[in-house]
Amino acid sequence: MDLKEAALNLHKLNKGKLATKSKVSVATKQDLSLVYTPGVAEVCRAIASNKSSVYEYTMKANSVAVVTDGSAVLGLGNIGAEASLPVMEGKCVLFKELANIDAFPICLKTQNDKEIIEIVKNIEPAFGGINLEDISAPRCFGIEEALLDIGIPVMHDDQHGSAIVILAALMNAAKVVGKKIEDLKVVINGAGAAGTAVTKLLLCLGIDRNICTSVREIVLCDSKGIIYDGRADLNEFKKQLAKVTNRSKRIGTLKDALAGADAFVGLSAGNLLIADDLRNMNKNSIIFAMANPIPEIMPDEAKKFAAVVGTGRSDFPNQINNSLSFPGVFRGALDAKAVKINNEMKIAAAHALANCIKPTKDNILPYTLDKSVVPRIAEAVKKAALESGLARK
Amino acid sequence: MDLKEAALNLHKLNKGKLATKSKVSVATKQDLSLVYTPGVAEVCRAIASNKSSVYEYTMKANSVAVVTDGSAVLGLGNIGAEASLPVMEGKCVLFKELANIDAFPICLKTQNDKEIIEIVKNIEPAFGGINLEDISAPRCFGIEEALLDIGIPVMHDDQHGSAIVILAALMNAAKVVGKKIEDLKVVINGAGAAGTAVTKLLLCLGIDRNICTSVREIVLCDSKGIIYDGRADLNEFKKQLAKVTNRSKRIGTLKDALAGADAFVGLSAGNLLIADDLRNMNKNSIIFAMANPIPEIMPDEAKKFAAVVGTGRSDFPNQINNSLSFPGVFRGALDAKAVKINNEMKIAAAHALANCIKPTKDNILPYTLDKSVVPRIAEAVKKAALESGLARK
Repeated sequence: MDLKEAALNLHKLNKGKLATKSKVSVATKQDLSLVYTPGVAEVCRAIASNKSSVYEYTMKANSVAVVTDGSAVLGLGNIGAEASLPVMEGKCVLFKELANIDAFPICLKTQNDKEIIEIVKNIEPAFGGINLEDISAPRCFGIEEALLDIGIPVMHDDQHGSAIVILAALMNAAKVVGKKIEDLKVVINGAGAAGTAVTKLLLCLGIDRNICTSVREIVLCDSKGIIYDGRADLNEFKKQLAKVTNRSKRIGTLKDALAGADAFVGLSAGNLLIADDLRNMNKNSIIFAMANPIPEIMPDEAKKFAAVVGTGRSDFPNQINNSLSFPGVFRGALDAKAVKINNEMKIAAAHALANCIKPTKDNILPYTLDKSVVPRIAEAVKKAALESGLARK
Repeated sequence: MDLKEAALNLHKLNKGKLATKSKVSVATKQDLSLVYTPGVAEVCRAIASNKSSVYEYTMKANSVAVVTDGSAVLGLGNIGAEASLPVMEGKCVLFKELANIDAFPICLKTQNDKEIIEIVKNIEPAFGGINLEDISAPRCFGIEEALLDIGIPVMHDDQHGSAIVILAALMNAAKVVGKKIEDLKVVINGAGAAGTAVTKLLLCLGIDRNICTSVREIVLCDSKGIIYDGRADLNEFKKQLAKVTNRSKRIGTLKDALAGADAFVGLSAGNLLIADDLRNMNKNSIIFAMANPIPEIMPDEAKKFAAVVGTGRSDFPNQINNSLSFPGVFRGALDAKAVKINNEMKIAAAHALANCIKPTKDNILPYTLDKSVVPRIAEAVKKAALESGLARK
């Protein structure tokens, strides 16, 4: 049986993957009178008179909504709310299994940004956090932005979950090749959710005390080539990025951008590059070819010039996958009682993730299901949240 | 330790009552490749090409959203979304424990009817059913009405869950006192969610083949007294009810209404009646005094004239509580793949519930946690749904 058939069978047999579970016994009339009426009324009264006690008496402190509109699911595109549900359930299962977080899928029929924002604001009371998922770029930027101040952590995982793992991978790859991360010239291909977020995160590395500056240079490319200040066809989000990247004001194609670069981060489409395209990169270059399922360049090809090669796939060394970050980030944010997730928390998560392993050429990141990862990220994120003064009053 | 303290402790100790749980193993890389990427993509594709297969491959077929705006919680009133969460979690726990349904609380910040309707429509994809809960009357009528055709069963439990249990209780109480239900003259006090729904359900009993007509006469009262066609202060919902109840066109107070009545159904406020007020009811009268926590009349008082007395409380005989109905109703609707819950299904549920017990004066309904109740109601509801042609195509 191949993987596709096995996946269909598993989902059909179990009728999906997520269920609920009671944390209390409901075996006797006495149980019922505590869990439900009349006893529950006292708990309602307590919260009505002190709203913040909802975190003490209910599931809110440990629950996360995985919210999507199904507009950019995996590499499948705009397949809609119903078809996105298997991914959202999978995410909820990982939240539970890896971080003991009670997550539930909210798959929205609407793809109207304003409606999505209003719905998330309105369902907030029962949730301690919001994981936005598979919402298309550039819409995802405005939607997330509008939700950052609703009082609970909100994170679009395709942006920041990815950015955190890529940053950790880059930190460790730099160690392996004996370069400092702040000396790297990085080319990022793909200015969507992940490409934008990793660019921003690399630019604000300096806010973390452990690293004094951002990486030396980021050149961001999209399907039209290098993004530069003044390029005529840029949307508002790319315009902003053009102002803070590409300091040496390069123009040209992705291949032009690679000349003199130390690292390539591919978040775009498969089969874009051949080995020869990497010839003019600096020595000991780093290639993260994360397009799924076909990488921008196959690892064997990339290795002709690159020292460290990673992909998004589990069947090659150095899988770079955001399952390594989001469970720990939300665990830490919930544990800290943080009202939001800031850059300091993301960078702390990347450091913690990088430090989970002594990196080698073929092992720059820990194994996806390594049980030590979530607690270490969570602790670091919690600490960063508290130091940032983000704990709920 | 008293009940209030015990309830607070239980909720604090467990940090609420509801959790999630994975139905699949995520122990190996192989597991991960089936549950999450890349295998899950095939499941998404299957649903994208045939939307109705979402019921086969995901949790949707067994999940229910418990949706509230916190505007009419228990007897506590408009305490808001956060303070309502303990009740919604309790409901979800009962769904799981009694009917193995995966229910999740959606507590809405908004109390704008239109927004509530839009949100429920938009979150529908991940849910197989919607249990509306603790939404104030008369708003609850319009909100439910607007959601009846969204393609999954939607039921406002405060209306119909209550009405089903009251109908079952009335059927059995009538048996106990040797009267036919269609001969009963019933006074209902309280024209809110439950009072309105039980009135409507009693009026359409005739649609069920087992009973040929509705009850003989219903007189509905509110805080101003008997509701009659032409009373100046009626809202649109009460106006409708005035046209189909009170055939003998009575006017006056609740006490006037009780003269010559066989049954009193109280869904109003505590301490309204004394024994003497029941003196002019017919012989072998039935009193359901369901105001919580203080009944309209205490059972000891009522028994001076009435033959069967029920309340909403667990510490008196004949507790009439909607936990007896909603789990089985939704179990049956989900099992039938019903697109909605109609009156036939509600009446079938009431019959099934009534038939769970050989009624006696002090045992007109089965014990709330009796494990045989849900399967029997579910089977009857499923049958009625299929016979009504409501199964999803």
